[in-house]
Amino acid sequence: MDLKQILQQYNDLCEDNDWQVFHTPKNLASALTVSAAKVLQHYQWITEEESISLGRIPKSRETIENEIAETFFYLMALANRTGIDLEQAIVNKAERDARDHQGAPD
Amino acid sequence: MDLKQILQQYNDLCEDNDWQVFHTPKNLASALTVSAAKVLQHYQWITEEESISLGRIPKSRETIENEIAETFFYLMALANRTGIDLEQAIVNKAERDARDHQGAPD
Amino acid sequence: MDLKQILQQYNDLCEDNDWQVFHTPKNLASALTVSAAKVLQHYQWITEEESISLGRIPKSRETIENEIAETFFYLMALANRTGIDLEQAIVNKAERDARDHQGAPD
Amino acid sequence: MDLKQILQQYNDLCEDNDWQVFHTPKNLASALTVSAAKVLQHYQWITEEESISLGRIPKSRETIENEIAETFFYLMALANRTGIDLEQAIVNKAERDARDHQGAPD
Repeated sequence: MDLKQILQQYNDLCEDNDWQVFHTPKNLASALTVSAAKVLQHYQWITEEESISLGRIPKSRETIENEIAETFFYLMALANRTGIDLEQAIVNKAERDARDHQGAPD
Repeated sequence: MDLKQILQQYNDLCEDNDWQVFHTPKNLASALTVSAAKVLQHYQWITEEESISLGRIPKSRETIENEIAETFFYLMALANRTGIDLEQAIVNKAERDARDHQGAPD
Repeated sequence: MDLKQILQQYNDLCEDNDWQVFHTPKNLASALTVSAAKVLQHYQWITEEESISLGRIPKSRETIENEIAETFFYLMALANRTGIDLEQAIVNKAERDARDHQGAPD
Repeated sequence: MDLKQILQQYNDLCEDNDWQVFHTPKNLASALTVSAAKVLQHYQWITEEESISLGRIPKSRETIENEIAETFFYLMALANRTGIDLEQAIVNKAERDARDHQGAPD
């Protein structure tokens, strides 16, 4: 997948629907959190063990898949509106985590 | 960026550090929400107007960039552990949104 | 209102419905966050100005009122299951805040 | 504890510190969610079983107690700024829950 292409398509959709005026970083950060909490709602009363197999129930899976994608779009839009390059941020964090948590080479 | 490659690298890191036992969907959904809320915390007392320029302050930007990347990793890990193909989920949602919100062609 | 009485009544309801097994602190902390995020959802795309008058729309007000009460019950249940005296915690925090933020006496 | 008295004292503190301008319902709903997520953070990687005993560790207990009280204050302030009587909302919800979930009388 090409993140830049998806982002461009998403931005076009937002512009075509005049959503940009609502998409301030403050609002997108709220929408991101609300969207993540919707995902969490599926798991709040079940055990960790049960949570592993929830994705196998087609109805739950479809809903969770949609909410995970929604969370991703808000994350991408927030990065975009904050002037953050999401790809670069991910690569930076991956490198930092690898450095912080990996053992020394032989 | 290649999402699959980043995901593979992240999974290797989790395995090397024995994090997989903690990474149940239930726990990852909590971590996702907590991580999103940390992003929101920067914006909770400022206006929408002010939120637009927050990304220009280097210190804030760096912190937000790191938290956005963290949120992305939890989202990716959750999708992975739930058996959801994040790329496909994003493409599906982009198509559904385009279909639902685009005007009819001339 | 007597908090202790409300708490007792709520505990009885939980016991009568065998909810206690689900009401671990971990689960209640998730439910608390999800419930708070549901409240936030009403405000995510509106301005601060608009948010001030949202409570005047009967339909919104009724929903928000119910979600605020739900959030309170999860907060109370979490405190209870964690061995925290909610009343005492509130009084302690009120005193700490007053001490930290009040000007010195004349 | 008298909720009305605590609310009055909290409002006085907010006024004395000129916090009222920041305390729009939109902002308070964000602060409420962020505060709840801070509580959740303590529980995200531990098991339900472990979560039951977390309150016995003095350091964790003190932090959680403070965050629970903070969550309560944002909940109270939000209710207040939305024109919702928190006491009445709680009583209404308690009655509704009892009606919905109690078995029929003999």
